[in-house]
Parts: sequence; structure tokens; C-alpha cells
Amino acid sequence: MQARPTRLGELAERLGGRPVEGDPDFVVSGAAPLEEGGPGDLGFVRSPRHAGALAGTRVGALIAPPGVEAGGRPVIRSSVPNLDFARAVALLLPRPRPQPGIHPAAMVAAGARVDPSASVGPGAVVGARSRVGARSVLHANAVLAEDVVVGEDCELHAGVVVREESELGDRVVLQPGVVIGGDGFGYEFDEQGRHEKVPQVGRVVIEDDVEIGANATVDRARLGVTRIGRGAKIDNLVQIGHNCVIGAHSLVVAQSGLAGSTVLGERVFMMAQSGSAGHLTIGEGSFVAARGGVIEDLPPGSRVWGFPAAPQRAWHRSAALVARLPELVRRLRAVERRLGLRGGGERGDAE
Amino acid sequence: MQARPTRLGELAERLGGRPVEGDPDFVVSGAAPLEEGGPGDLGFVRSPRHAGALAGTRVGALIAPPGVEAGGRPVIRSSVPNLDFARAVALLLPRPRPQPGIHPAAMVAAGARVDPSASVGPGAVVGARSRVGARSVLHANAVLAEDVVVGEDCELHAGVVVREESELGDRVVLQPGVVIGGDGFGYEFDEQGRHEKVPQVGRVVIEDDVEIGANATVDRARLGVTRIGRGAKIDNLVQIGHNCVIGAHSLVVAQSGLAGSTVLGERVFMMAQSGSAGHLTIGEGSFVAARGGVIEDLPPGSRVWGFPAAPQRAWHRSAALVARLPELVRRLRAVERRLGLRGGGERGDAE
Amino acid sequence: MQARPTRLGELAERLGGRPVEGDPDFVVSGAAPLEEGGPGDLGFVRSPRHAGALAGTRVGALIAPPGVEAGGRPVIRSSVPNLDFARAVALLLPRPRPQPGIHPAAMVAAGARVDPSASVGPGAVVGARSRVGARSVLHANAVLAEDVVVGEDCELHAGVVVREESELGDRVVLQPGVVIGGDGFGYEFDEQGRHEKVPQVGRVVIEDDVEIGANATVDRARLGVTRIGRGAKIDNLVQIGHNCVIGAHSLVVAQSGLAGSTVLGERVFMMAQSGSAGHLTIGEGSFVAARGGVIEDLPPGSRVWGFPAAPQRAWHRSAALVARLPELVRRLRAVERRLGLRGGGERGDAE
Repeated sequence: MQARPTRLGELAERLGGRPVEGDPDFVVSGAAPLEEGGPGDLGFVRSPRHAGALAGTRVGALIAPPGVEAGGRPVIRSSVPNLDFARAVALLLPRPRPQPGIHPAAMVAAGARVDPSASVGPGAVVGARSRVGARSVLHANAVLAEDVVVGEDCELHAGVVVREESELGDRVVLQPGVVIGGDGFGYEFDEQGRHEKVPQVGRVVIEDDVEIGANATVDRARLGVTRIGRGAKIDNLVQIGHNCVIGAHSLVVAQSGLAGSTVLGERVFMMAQSGSAGHLTIGEGSFVAARGGVIEDLPPGSRVWGFPAAPQRAWHRSAALVARLPELVRRLRAVERRLGLRGGGERGDAE
Repeated sequence: MQARPTRLGELAERLGGRPVEGDPDFVVSGAAPLEEGGPGDLGFVRSPRHAGALAGTRVGALIAPPGVEAGGRPVIRSSVPNLDFARAVALLLPRPRPQPGIHPAAMVAAGARVDPSASVGPGAVVGARSRVGARSVLHANAVLAEDVVVGEDCELHAGVVVREESELGDRVVLQPGVVIGGDGFGYEFDEQGRHEKVPQVGRVVIEDDVEIGANATVDRARLGVTRIGRGAKIDNLVQIGHNCVIGAHSLVVAQSGLAGSTVLGERVFMMAQSGSAGHLTIGEGSFVAARGGVIEDLPPGSRVWGFPAAPQRAWHRSAALVARLPELVRRLRAVERRLGLRGGGERGDAE
Repeated sequence: MQARPTRLGELAERLGGRPVEGDPDFVVSGAAPLEEGGPGDLGFVRSPRHAGALAGTRVGALIAPPGVEAGGRPVIRSSVPNLDFARAVALLLPRPRPQPGIHPAAMVAAGARVDPSASVGPGAVVGARSRVGARSVLHANAVLAEDVVVGEDCELHAGVVVREESELGDRVVLQPGVVIGGDGFGYEFDEQGRHEKVPQVGRVVIEDDVEIGANATVDRARLGVTRIGRGAKIDNLVQIGHNCVIGAHSLVVAQSGLAGSTVLGERVFMMAQSGSAGHLTIGEGSFVAARGGVIEDLPPGSRVWGFPAAPQRAWHRSAALVARLPELVRRLRAVERRLGLRGGGERGDAE
């Protein structure tokens, strides 16, 4: 990114009027982790606990919570340094937006409606009756099929495919290669015992402020709607089956998969490589650990690990005991020997 | 989808002449699950066991097995209500086919052959010497490399890539983002211990009536053929390694992976997030549960769970006993105490 | 592939001057596994241990180690028959390279620089200020965003997307659908407890001789660089999180995932469907078995299995004992019975 050098005082003001200690005219021209940054960079300290990370850093300025000694550097004081640093990065290293307008090598169907402030890149396709809202961006070779609605301030990266009748709210971001509205996996055995396709005639609705990671897939509903709730974030290579409902502000981390008709409450966390069987509900605020596999309904606030998913404490105890099985077998053998139930070292016993 | 309102009597006839009870002139204009449908919708009851779901439904007409009380609604009687409902949906909510012909923004190489009844969308590419059969559809930005054969009545969705020399039968459906014929993962250590690529010069053959889900990948063979058998269905984000052979009518559910040279017999079910090591055979009619990981040959009709995959009963017993390990440790400790083998509560014992 | 029939003597010479036994003028016109090849094909024997595979083969010529009886066929003698066979295949079945030049339906931004010996296919996009080196190939509909650098002799297959500021070395191969430089998964809770996106303003560097499989994803760094080291090979549908560093010559097999800031040393093997938690280091030369899930730092040379990943021997013993849990419970029960601690067959005991 091209940096936009900025006075620390101006930055503090744009972060909502944070107090500055030291020279407000110090100009930062970049942002970096403490261990990598140089004298022109802004760094941050997440909390007083992390103040030790300042030893040896070469960054020229800081965002830090009150009470953290800045070592003579100019510092913006903040009670949310992680948030303010993220916002400062967006100001210092803004991603350029493409020019509004339709690239001559884009293909917009007659009857599609693209807001004049939107941007449609080379090779991008807007199908019949589709609509693209104000300031939204379709990057190169992205495809909207027919009857797709894209709201305002969306960004659809290169190679995204949105199939027919899908609906995206405002500020939706789709990373490259995302597929929205592919047919769900639905077959019935026919009279000869072969798979007959069940038509997938429902659609996908993606609410405001959703982001979906590269090459993730969200299937259209069999009938009705697959819904990704407001503010949900879905990571790369995730699979969302037909008729799933993802609650608002939920997170589904990389390579997780939700089978058809899974319902996630609000603010559920599905960590990486987790999964759920279909037709179940994971209650609001639940946490499914990495690799967790959910096979039954979970009440709100559940915290589960493992496969089949079990409560955190139970899973950790079982996992620890599995690792101790060789010892337990030795102890069992000692007991048996004492009782004369079994000789030592016979074939088939634990190694 | 745009509904095509239809008389119940006409629908019954097109389903093969099913009997109608009640008004055959009742017009249905949609299809819906019982709990969601309205008075213009058709619903269905899968079996007499599911008749309770009729309580409170607002659908106007039904497909139901003989003997299920329809509550005064007109009803099509069927011994396969799930199948007939799927077929009725296809009639009531038909997906429009694109016009035949090559879009002016498509790129068809000189010497490629596209049937006049086929449809090639904007930005789609047909490489040199490739052939597209009658009534097949290439959606926007789909790519056929050189020497690809696509049969009749196929549908290749937007962004699909089919690499050189791949061969697709008839009625093959590829959801968006599918990649056919990428190079397999094959390297040999060279004299300096570095990875040297093994040329992947084989190809992929996909037989009739196969469907492959969004962003799934099927690698070309190292030498010879990677084959997806007739009627097999492969779900989103599945990986099929080089030289695999998938038996006819097999199902491979989302995010599963088959390592190179896996052979699946006919009608094998690989459930979601399952996997197999390479160079093994999973016999006809086998079932691999979700997350199952197969590491040795399985005879026909196997039903396995877990990783390493074990027979259903063994896995369920082991899984249940793992959850009971804390109790088993307590019992072992009680035995040891009784025998004076060990004091209570010493360090390192189970919590 | 179109075969290029070649005299065995010429082949031996091009393999670095290997000795030929039998007729050097024998012409091979293909290459095949021993069990499939015909009289015009070249086959190979990996080692004297594999000589039994020669029984019944119909191949006309061989590459084989000294001492393996060739059954009267002409044979190239080699101490690295697997390598020499791979190289012979590349000579016998060369993949044709596209013509140099920019296809009229490609879209190269003003100010981008494409070497005259490079090839840019139909529908491919080269963004502003991007550069494509000598002899590199962009296949149909591949997309380079702005400020991308592609070195020499690279091959980017159809539908690849490389986002802004990514840098590829020489001889990099990206299979179809690969996404380089998508935003990493980074959010902070804002003051209202909602997810606020952390700008991902770093980039991706891919060193020389890297190959990445179909539909795999490599996220750009939050700040700084996500780096794929020289000679590393990454398989289909793999996820590499932001700020990961993959050591030179490492292998990451299909559907594996590395969470953010994972560091792999050189020559690490991550087998299929494995994973790592973020912010950890897997030391040089380590081996993570299929499905292995690493949750803590691993020293160089580690060999781990399972989840949580444990040393090979520990995991195999635990896995074997889990399968034997029903037997262990029976033994524990027998001990309890002997001690009068518990009656036989009571509810809740293992079955």
C-alpha cells in the first residue's frame, strides 16, 4: 500500500480525539509490529501486560494505554489501543478504490442496473436484471448471474461468482473465488436406486457487514433461504450447506463446514476445521473449538471441544487420560498380577 | 425462480399418472416445506410417520402416501412422495435455460466445435480443438482449455476451469469454481534432496450424470486416467487426487479428500470431512462416516467411523469409553487402594 | 498430450548419459505404469525390490536399476530410475507451451509490463503497474491485480487470482483457482462488541520454484509479509493464514490449514488434512501426519500424529489402547468382582 504520512495530532483527532503525549507534529509514515517497525512507523501496545514488548523496538511513535511508559516517544493514549491501531492503519495505508464506472471490457446485461458511483472491472459480468448499489466494486472477472442484488459499499473481489437470485446487503466483502448460491447437495434415490437431483430452487441472503473468505462456498437453499446474518465473518474454504442460518456476528473460521439446515445463533464461534451435522441448532454465544464436530443441538453459551463435541472440561480430561492410557494399563496389570488374575507380560497386553 | 402455476391434475399426470383426490383444477403456484408454505403452495408428506407435520400447515395442496389424511386439501397420492415432490418442484419452478449460441464476449478458439444448440456465456473460453455437445451450457467466465470434450446437456457454471484433454460425458453438472484436471501432487527428491515435479500427463474422465460441487477439485492422472464414475455426486470443496477411480453412483460429501490412486467401488458413501489414504480400495456399498479416515483397504459393504476408521460398533464403544475414562480411572484407583498398591490422591493421578 | 516418439539412445543421452542395454534405436512413443503399458511404452522399476512388478508387463522398454533383469527388453540403467522416468516422461509427452504474446481478448492495463516472450491468454487481466517476466504464462481468465510482480518461467493457470502487491519469483506454478493475497481473517471487537475489520495491508511473497495446487488460498499479511519459501509445494485446497512463513522445500498436502503466523522450518511435511494453531513454530525437518493437529511449538525433526499432535510412538500406543478399551473395562470389572467392589453386569457399565 502507498502510505499517507500523517501528523500524530491529526491521527489522534481522527481516532475520536485521543490525547497525545509528546510532539503532535511528529509524522508517521507507516505502521508495523513493534519488533519490525522503524523510526517512521507507528506501533501499539495492547495492554500494560504487553509493555515488555517495547524493549528494543525501533518504532517512532505509539498508541498505548494510559500508564505504559513510552520511552520518550510521542504517544496517543487510548483505552482501546488495538482498535485505534487498526483504525490508524486504515488511515495511514488506505487501500485505493477503483474509479467509478464500467470498464469497457466488462459485460453488463441489458436491463441490469449499476449505480453510476459503482465500479465494474474488466471481464466482470452483471447478469440480466441484476443490480449493483452505490459505491460497490466488482473486481476483474467477478460474475453476477441473473436477478442478483448487491447493496451499497460492497466489494466483490476478482473471480467471485454469485449465482441467480442471491441478495447481498450493504458493506458485504467477498474475497476472491467465493461462490454464493451454488446448488446444495440434495439427492433422492429413484425407483432404480440411483441418485436423482432434488431441485435447489431457494436462494441465498447475505445481510449487511458480512465478510466471506477466499474460495469459501455458500449453497442456495433447497426451498426458501440460506441466510448469513448481519456482521457474520466467514473465513477461507468454509462450506455453508443449503438452508443454513448463520446468526448475526458469528465467526466461522477456515475450512469449517456446516451441513444443511444448521442454525447458528448470534455470536457463535466455530473455530478452524470444525463442523456440524445437519438439522441442528448451535445456541447463541456458543464456542466450538478447532476440529470440534457437533452432532447434536447445543444450548446457548456452550463451549465444546473434540469429536463428537463435548464440554471443554470433559474433553480435556478425556484427552489427557487417553495420553495416559499406557500408564493405566500398566497399573491394571499390576493389580491383576497381585490378584493372580493374569501372568505378567503375556501376548496381547499393552506395550 | 419464476413459478409456473399448474393445475394439480396436470401435475399428477406429468408425474406419471398419479391419482388425485379432491379438486384436480386446484392451481398450485409454488412449493414449500410444510411449516413455511402458504395457500398457493404444494407441500408433501414423506411417509405416514411424518403425518404429524401436517398440523398447522397452511399449504393448499399435498403430495402424500395413501392413507395419510389430507385435511380436506386436494392431494396427489404417491408411493414415492419425496421423489414426486422433487419432480413437481422442477415443473413448478423451472430454472430458465440460457439462449443457445455463443455470446459475443465469449472466446471460442479457431477449430473448437460448439454445437449450435449449446450456449456459451460472456467471458467463457473454449480452447483449441475442444468440443461442446448439444444443449450444453457454459456460463460466464467458464474455461475449457485445449482438447476438452463436453458431452450433451451438461451445465458448467461460472468460473469453472476444465484443463486440457479432460472428457465429460452427458448431463454432467459442474457448480461454480470447480477445477477439473489440475496437476496432481507428485514430486520426487532429486539428487540434491529437492522436490522435482513428476509430470502429470494423464487426464480426467467424468462419466454421464455426474455432479460436482462448488470449488471442488479433481486432479488429472500422473499417467492414465482419474475417473469419476457414472452418476457419482461430489460435494463442495472435495479433493480427488490423481489416478483415483470413483465408482458409479458413489457420493463424496463436502470437504472430504481422497489421496492419489484411491479406488472407490460403486455406491460408496464418503460423508463430510472424511478422507482416505492413497493406493487403497474402498469396497462397493461401503459407508465412511463424517470425519472418518480410511487407512487400509475396506471390503465391500463396510461401515466405518472415526480415525483410524473402525467398524461402527467398535468405534461407538471406544468413543463412549473414552468419555467414561475419568470414571474408569476412579475405579482403578479404588481397586489399588483396596490392595494397598497406592495411596489416595497422589500427584499425577487423574483429576 | 501428444507424444514425441524418441529413440532410447537419445533419451538416455538426454538423461545425462545413462548406459543402454539392448537396442538403442528402439523407439518409445509413450510412458505408462508397468501394469498398463503397451509395446510402444517406456516403463520403470523403482528398485530391485520392485522387480516382481515386471511379471506380465507389456511395456517395450524400461528404465531400471543395475541388476534388475529386463526380460530381453532394451533398458536404460539408472541409479535413480524414478527421477529418470519422470524426466523421460517430460521429454516424451511435453506439454505444449502457448504462443508468446498477449491475446486480443486479454486486458493489460496501461503501464503494466509484460515481457514479449510471455504469454497472456484470453480474458486474462494484468492490473496497473504489474509486471510479467520472460516466458511466463497467464492462462485464460487469470487475474493479476495492481502492483503484482511475476518472475520468469512462471505458469498461472486459468482462473488464478493474485491480489495487489504480491510478488512471485521464478518458475512458480499456480494451478487453477488459486487465490494469492486475499485478506487475512482479522477482526477486533469494537466498543459495542461487534467485529471490526483489521486492515490487512501486508502482502504475499512467493519464492522461486514454488507450486500451489488448485483452489488453495494464501492470505496476505496483516502487516509485513506472508512468505512461501523457495521450492515449497502446496497442494489443493490448502489454507495458509496471514503472516505465515513456509520454509524452503516444505510440503503441505491437500486440505491442510495453517492458522495465522505459523512458521514452518525448512523441509517440513504437513500431510493431508493436517493443521496448526497460529503463532507457533514447527521446526525444520518435522513431519506432521495426516489429520495431525499441532497446538504447540515443535522442535526440529519432530514426528507427530493425531490431535492434539503427539509423538508417533505415543500416538500409536494411545490409538491402539483406545481400540482395546472394551477389553480393559472387562478386565477392570473382573478385578472389582474379585475384590467384591462391584457386582457383575450392573447398569452403566461398559458394553
